[in-house]
Amino acid sequence: MVIIIQCRDRVGLVAAITSVLAKAELNIVSMREHVDLEEKMFFARIVVDGIQSQQNIEMAITEVLPAGAIVKVNPLPEKKIVVLVTKEYHCLSDILTRNYFKTLGAKVLCVIGNHPDLRNITEQFSIPFHFVSHENKSKEDFENDLTNIILQYEPDYLILAKFMRILSPEFIMTFRLRIINIHHSFLPAFIGASPYMQAFKRGVKIIGATAHFVTDDLDEGPIITQTIIPVNHSFTLTDLIKAGRENETAALAKAMQLVFEDKVFVFNHKTVVFE
Amino acid sequence: MVIIIQCRDRVGLVAAITSVLAKAELNIVSMREHVDLEEKMFFARIVVDGIQSQQNIEMAITEVLPAGAIVKVNPLPEKKIVVLVTKEYHCLSDILTRNYFKTLGAKVLCVIGNHPDLRNITEQFSIPFHFVSHENKSKEDFENDLTNIILQYEPDYLILAKFMRILSPEFIMTFRLRIINIHHSFLPAFIGASPYMQAFKRGVKIIGATAHFVTDDLDEGPIITQTIIPVNHSFTLTDLIKAGRENETAALAKAMQLVFEDKVFVFNHKTVVFE
Amino acid sequence: MVIIIQCRDRVGLVAAITSVLAKAELNIVSMREHVDLEEKMFFARIVVDGIQSQQNIEMAITEVLPAGAIVKVNPLPEKKIVVLVTKEYHCLSDILTRNYFKTLGAKVLCVIGNHPDLRNITEQFSIPFHFVSHENKSKEDFENDLTNIILQYEPDYLILAKFMRILSPEFIMTFRLRIINIHHSFLPAFIGASPYMQAFKRGVKIIGATAHFVTDDLDEGPIITQTIIPVNHSFTLTDLIKAGRENETAALAKAMQLVFEDKVFVFNHKTVVFE
Amino acid sequence: MVIIIQCRDRVGLVAAITSVLAKAELNIVSMREHVDLEEKMFFARIVVDGIQSQQNIEMAITEVLPAGAIVKVNPLPEKKIVVLVTKEYHCLSDILTRNYFKTLGAKVLCVIGNHPDLRNITEQFSIPFHFVSHENKSKEDFENDLTNIILQYEPDYLILAKFMRILSPEFIMTFRLRIINIHHSFLPAFIGASPYMQAFKRGVKIIGATAHFVTDDLDEGPIITQTIIPVNHSFTLTDLIKAGRENETAALAKAMQLVFEDKVFVFNHKTVVFE
Repeated sequence: MVIIIQCRDRVGLVAAITSVLAKAELNIVSMREHVDLEEKMFFARIVVDGIQSQQNIEMAITEVLPAGAIVKVNPLPEKKIVVLVTKEYHCLSDILTRNYFKTLGAKVLCVIGNHPDLRNITEQFSIPFHFVSHENKSKEDFENDLTNIILQYEPDYLILAKFMRILSPEFIMTFRLRIINIHHSFLPAFIGASPYMQAFKRGVKIIGATAHFVTDDLDEGPIITQTIIPVNHSFTLTDLIKAGRENETAALAKAMQLVFEDKVFVFNHKTVVFE
Repeated sequence: MVIIIQCRDRVGLVAAITSVLAKAELNIVSMREHVDLEEKMFFARIVVDGIQSQQNIEMAITEVLPAGAIVKVNPLPEKKIVVLVTKEYHCLSDILTRNYFKTLGAKVLCVIGNHPDLRNITEQFSIPFHFVSHENKSKEDFENDLTNIILQYEPDYLILAKFMRILSPEFIMTFRLRIINIHHSFLPAFIGASPYMQAFKRGVKIIGATAHFVTDDLDEGPIITQTIIPVNHSFTLTDLIKAGRENETAALAKAMQLVFEDKVFVFNHKTVVFE
Repeated sequence: MVIIIQCRDRVGLVAAITSVLAKAELNIVSMREHVDLEEKMFFARIVVDGIQSQQNIEMAITEVLPAGAIVKVNPLPEKKIVVLVTKEYHCLSDILTRNYFKTLGAKVLCVIGNHPDLRNITEQFSIPFHFVSHENKSKEDFENDLTNIILQYEPDYLILAKFMRILSPEFIMTFRLRIINIHHSFLPAFIGASPYMQAFKRGVKIIGATAHFVTDDLDEGPIITQTIIPVNHSFTLTDLIKAGRENETAALAKAMQLVFEDKVFVFNHKTVVFE
Repeated sequence: MVIIIQCRDRVGLVAAITSVLAKAELNIVSMREHVDLEEKMFFARIVVDGIQSQQNIEMAITEVLPAGAIVKVNPLPEKKIVVLVTKEYHCLSDILTRNYFKTLGAKVLCVIGNHPDLRNITEQFSIPFHFVSHENKSKEDFENDLTNIILQYEPDYLILAKFMRILSPEFIMTFRLRIINIHHSFLPAFIGASPYMQAFKRGVKIIGATAHFVTDDLDEGPIITQTIIPVNHSFTLTDLIKAGRENETAALAKAMQLVFEDKVFVFNHKTVVFE
């Protein structure tokens, strides 16, 4: 059983929570907690061993916490996701493969592309693919088309696996803190378009990738994971992009794993990640 | 206040411990715990905020734990160490510098060398240096000479900073789990002498360094940290050794920091490290 | 045009080679060379720009080199490979995906499994799968079955993508320096079976993976790439294996890329890799 | 003998250069070259074995190169440096230690501080320390004071080892491409002041350090090396700064080594580094 708690901090919280667990004869297998001293927030992820009603435990814990606490006992054992893509295959095919071999920690419900390029690879894995062009329509219409498809699948998370359209604040609000994006740079370096071109021109010796939750502040969403690879003067722009792909795939894969295992908490603009 | 606990695991341990803290009005700032399910051992490191008698807390916690528990409240705020060296300067000079600027987290009491080469750098930092040759005497006599000097300083830990003599089980037992060594390889690869020569001959693409507690089983002591650096075919043996030095210094520095901050627990042949 | 040279070293080699290129009006875009001073061997990889008959250049260069030189001009623009697997999917699916999107740098001709588990994923990508059981037959018969299938495809390289059978010296000799294996440890640590179990018991803080050419000296073949990931006390054996998979996939992918781009030279037990 | 060449690219350059070496009976031990295809620039670093007049070789090579070529044969075997500091000790003490044990690859002539804090550690290593306050004087006067001291030492390079004053374009021009700075972030992220505070607020998962040549475009100088360390939510600002120090020391040490071994070329805003 996994227990997720996020609330205002106060003295005796851990004692109060763990006493509830002890009374319920649940043995703590592992426990991670963090107190953000500036924000006075408490975050905990507890894995317990033992048999108890999920609902009872959730109520019993909530009772001993400050008002407004978020408590989830056994949050969704398998997340359901919808993947949004454009033309680049590397993140999508990694997701499809892990999904196929049941090591993704989530179930891919469908893939939506604003280009049709990735239909074949998706359908090859027997996953529905929806082509929703953004051309010849307003952003609002485009996003309505997306939303209509997404909502019928009822996903827990949207994964932007190299989806190259900027989403409106309205769309983002609909799926608040449920959209994960892979950004092809070491944020906050190279914000915006063509980060590899920027990196090439700047002559950097390391390039990065950042997986983050999407908020309406573009490229400013809470960071989940960052990964890097060393590069050098001999890398052409094409080489940078190629190397970057491996890096992006790795960063997104790691971020998804952490989120799907309920190890990521978001508060304000930052995350707490119990790796 | 830092609280260190190591004991047999059982249901309700965390609740029992944190209830003691809550009653004493100590707020948990951070808490790390680990249960070794195979060995049924419980390890915790708790940082609390608040004013209480160290001794009372230690007693109160011990009372709620299984027999044989190790409990330390505010373990030595500053550790005292004796450093053993031979001829190589890199780890020692790093230790002396950090000691001088009070960022080592420990106080260097003296340096003992089985060669006189590092006397100057040591004394330059106003630290006593003892030259204890291993030549023309038995291992027993050599170690007795070492022990006599060490005991008069009453150190908490002995740091083998590229000390190139193998210590006897008797010597090691005298300072059980208090001797930290830096081994110049990625243990268990290249056990024994000349690991860089072995690595060179084998054509490895990464070399490592391992900081570990010394036990009488040579090169088999509990590992605290391991660090690596990439190498390639263009590295001569000299280059490997040079690159290795940076790596060794980093690995030992990190291991010392972790140990001096009471973040390392040892059980059987392994460590629990709350980084 | 890529030019690969491996020969005994002597004064004036680079001048002699590059003079040939200059006379042929080929511009050197990039050049990497290495001299192994111990073995007195010369290795070079030269990329040139310009139009010339491949055969003429190869002959002209060979003429200015010591006897026994290996010279390849434009070595196979696309390598052809046969992949051998057992049950684990992670390396294979990465290969199949890259092959599908033409970013592998090689063409997968077929997959051979000594278990049928990976037939579906292979055929899904429209690649032939051959199930060759090792059961109820001698090693010789098993390897003959493998060889018969392999030879009809005429591959340049065999990729052991988690193929869990030990191959005989005879089989290895048939495909000398053309077999690439991914070993699930940081060789030479944890040689042999169950490296993750060994790593778990030893309490290491880093685990590695090694991609290497297979020679008849088991686990002693020339190393192409090594990659690592940090681990800690909280990793169960299952966690180690899971983390190891990501690492193995990455190490093998990188090694294949280097080999397929003709950036890897082998001499005795070591490689020269022009990354 | 080390030979450094930087010039416009054209067909036959390597042949022309290596023919000169062959005629002079100099054996090429290692050679690294790079052609910047966009800028049409050629860079080479050649290590040769054999006895020849430095001046003759330099002239003979220059003759076969395009006009304006930079050729250096055996550039300064040991560089001489002046180190500028403010209050932070970590980079300076690393430099002083390596200088003392003759592993820096350069000779420290003196240390200049705009605060007196690091006088003791400097003088302890028998290196002259000059305290040049920036207070109560104009930037011009301050820099004149610096320049007067620096010029009397005739250094090859100035090392800004956590020197916290911004230098004027005039000062920088005086020592053009001879000033190396360590910037406490992963440029171009967190440009400007307080990068650790910025990183803390942004909740990054990796922090970096950048060693670069100083040009009058602040924080935009050609990058020599970048290094990183992973961080997480549990890092306070103090922890970030502390971790950053290790990283800064490592990045600057590596950059100095590369520059002092004549492995770094600068062209426009980028470097070519033959690691």
